[in-house]
Amino acid sequence: MQRFSSDDLKEFSVSIFKKIGCPADQAELAAEVLSSADLRGIDSHGIARLIGYVRLWEKGRLNPNPNIQVVHEAPSTAVVDGDSGLGLVVAPPAMEIAMEKAEKVGTGWVSVRNSNHFGIAGYHAMLPLHHDMIGMAMTNASPLVAPTFAQERLLGTNPIAVAVPANEEPPFVADFATTTAANGKLEILQRKKEPTPYGWVQTKQGEQSNDSFAVAKGGALLPLGSDRDHGSHKGYCLGAWVDIFSAVLSGANYGPWVPPFVAFLDPSDHPVGKGIGHFLGAMRVDAFRPADEFKSHMDQWIRTFRQAETISGEKRVLIPGDQEREQEEFRRTQGIPLHSAVIDNLKELALKFRVDLPS
Amino acid sequence: MQRFSSDDLKEFSVSIFKKIGCPADQAELAAEVLSSADLRGIDSHGIARLIGYVRLWEKGRLNPNPNIQVVHEAPSTAVVDGDSGLGLVVAPPAMEIAMEKAEKVGTGWVSVRNSNHFGIAGYHAMLPLHHDMIGMAMTNASPLVAPTFAQERLLGTNPIAVAVPANEEPPFVADFATTTAANGKLEILQRKKEPTPYGWVQTKQGEQSNDSFAVAKGGALLPLGSDRDHGSHKGYCLGAWVDIFSAVLSGANYGPWVPPFVAFLDPSDHPVGKGIGHFLGAMRVDAFRPADEFKSHMDQWIRTFRQAETISGEKRVLIPGDQEREQEEFRRTQGIPLHSAVIDNLKELALKFRVDLPS
Repeated sequence: MQRFSSDDLKEFSVSIFKKIGCPADQAELAAEVLSSADLRGIDSHGIARLIGYVRLWEKGRLNPNPNIQVVHEAPSTAVVDGDSGLGLVVAPPAMEIAMEKAEKVGTGWVSVRNSNHFGIAGYHAMLPLHHDMIGMAMTNASPLVAPTFAQERLLGTNPIAVAVPANEEPPFVADFATTTAANGKLEILQRKKEPTPYGWVQTKQGEQSNDSFAVAKGGALLPLGSDRDHGSHKGYCLGAWVDIFSAVLSGANYGPWVPPFVAFLDPSDHPVGKGIGHFLGAMRVDAFRPADEFKSHMDQWIRTFRQAETISGEKRVLIPGDQEREQEEFRRTQGIPLHSAVIDNLKELALKFRVDLPS
Repeated sequence: MQRFSSDDLKEFSVSIFKKIGCPADQAELAAEVLSSADLRGIDSHGIARLIGYVRLWEKGRLNPNPNIQVVHEAPSTAVVDGDSGLGLVVAPPAMEIAMEKAEKVGTGWVSVRNSNHFGIAGYHAMLPLHHDMIGMAMTNASPLVAPTFAQERLLGTNPIAVAVPANEEPPFVADFATTTAANGKLEILQRKKEPTPYGWVQTKQGEQSNDSFAVAKGGALLPLGSDRDHGSHKGYCLGAWVDIFSAVLSGANYGPWVPPFVAFLDPSDHPVGKGIGHFLGAMRVDAFRPADEFKSHMDQWIRTFRQAETISGEKRVLIPGDQEREQEEFRRTQGIPLHSAVIDNLKELALKFRVDLPS
């Protein structure tokens, strides 16, 4: 795979976002969120998605210059309407509102409607870290997941991210889809024409499958846990929780009504809300105990887990966020590897908008 | 299995709690929380645990008449010290504080230290429902779970409960351990001398196992997801999240330091905090949108999922809380079935405290 400088790729994204009508500061922010995914090794949510956003804009489903507004609030809560904007630029100011509220009353919780895909949840959850706050971010997404015992797709991969500051240790950053495997992992196997492990997907008829194309053929991803015997009802609870907090609280679309990210699928003619939904939270650590005290205990927590005895064949117990941080250190200097299919997409965008593609 | 009236069992629990020194109102509350588990079909957390609490009290590890206090607070947060009381009576007033805060500023979040086992998380999460609030409850617990790649037990089964009110439909009530299987499920297989499915436990050496006695032999439960290929790192993130919110925020013990529930195992000589920790939250629905609007959309959410097409061989897609509610309806009239080993424990308590055992 060809490698590109992350700065060059970011600059390219900024140019494209400007070309579709984003104001300069929003183009910069959107590109920053995509770049963060590429740096952290979550390739499916980085510049690989740029063409997807452009296609939504071409269909008139994306407002490049949204008027992002608080439509309802209490001292520790708010509902934000994203005005059909890029989730990439709607979520960060919504998190800012959560942080302002946390500053005043200890915690802030913002449910967002009328948004679009917001990139990696972890980016948003990490925003409060520098203020000695814990951050949380969730979003619902296009229905690709069948709840336990269901044949139909009713939930998205609905990720949850939780970021917790430490003192000397790097922060704890969990960021995970509430399915057994994220869609990005399927795509890797599809490119290699390899099967999935059993427990990731089911067929359109709801049968067990190891076909990495099962979802493309009308099947579904499975909730974390894979099957009832292994707790898939818990993964279903998690995905449902994210859906309710992100969309039923805010007035966005939920369940099967969530508009698809892919522009070739039309959204429902009878929506139950506006756009897709997110849920963002910030908790000031010292609303619970002195921040220094908390952060030294987080250091101890992290060191204890990191130093635990491993099972045979494994080098270490990972702390959530370790892999992404190491990937970021590596990719900042060594560049972002892009698959040829992604490069082809970028070439298409470069040609269409007359922007130079980095090499 | 012999069946007992739930009222009779509750009365028996009240008597025992009074005998160990609980004030009448706290004995009543503690018995109510245990009874709720028995009614909802979560047998491992009901009266079967009564003797466990008594044994902790005998060891001097349980304060039957605690002075439960707020030790730190902000408008939307508090830390409560449970004064070594029964979690059964510490968690409900902590949730009351969360609800008072939610009444005033929209949400309330209470982290609890210096507590003991609080029964089923779902009981506490459901308290806010009648006030048109969403409830959340988490707790850490004795270390029985090995994080992904770890040989050691570092986390408890650390459950999460989320309760969401609806209008015409019964509420959505998710309540689940963040492991593939809860300990109670192992106990059922142990009694039948049957193996577990692979993916529930590992041996003391960290190898795959289907031995339902593996944990008793020094092995560990596995996080939701079972193995890395099936997302156990996500179950580990969930368990870690619960541990941090319940204990690092409050100043309770976390990770391997959480004191064991069983009285024959001593707590650490070098604790990192006080007792075990809980985390309780309440969010006023109308701090986000009008409650009626929210609750009708929850009705629609619930009906959509309930009516989904099922996979072959399954009758219906369940809504979180359905099974427990149906179990409660049945057991209120038909009684609570108790295993002979549990009845033997109750007989022992009856004899020791000279209290009549119901028949």
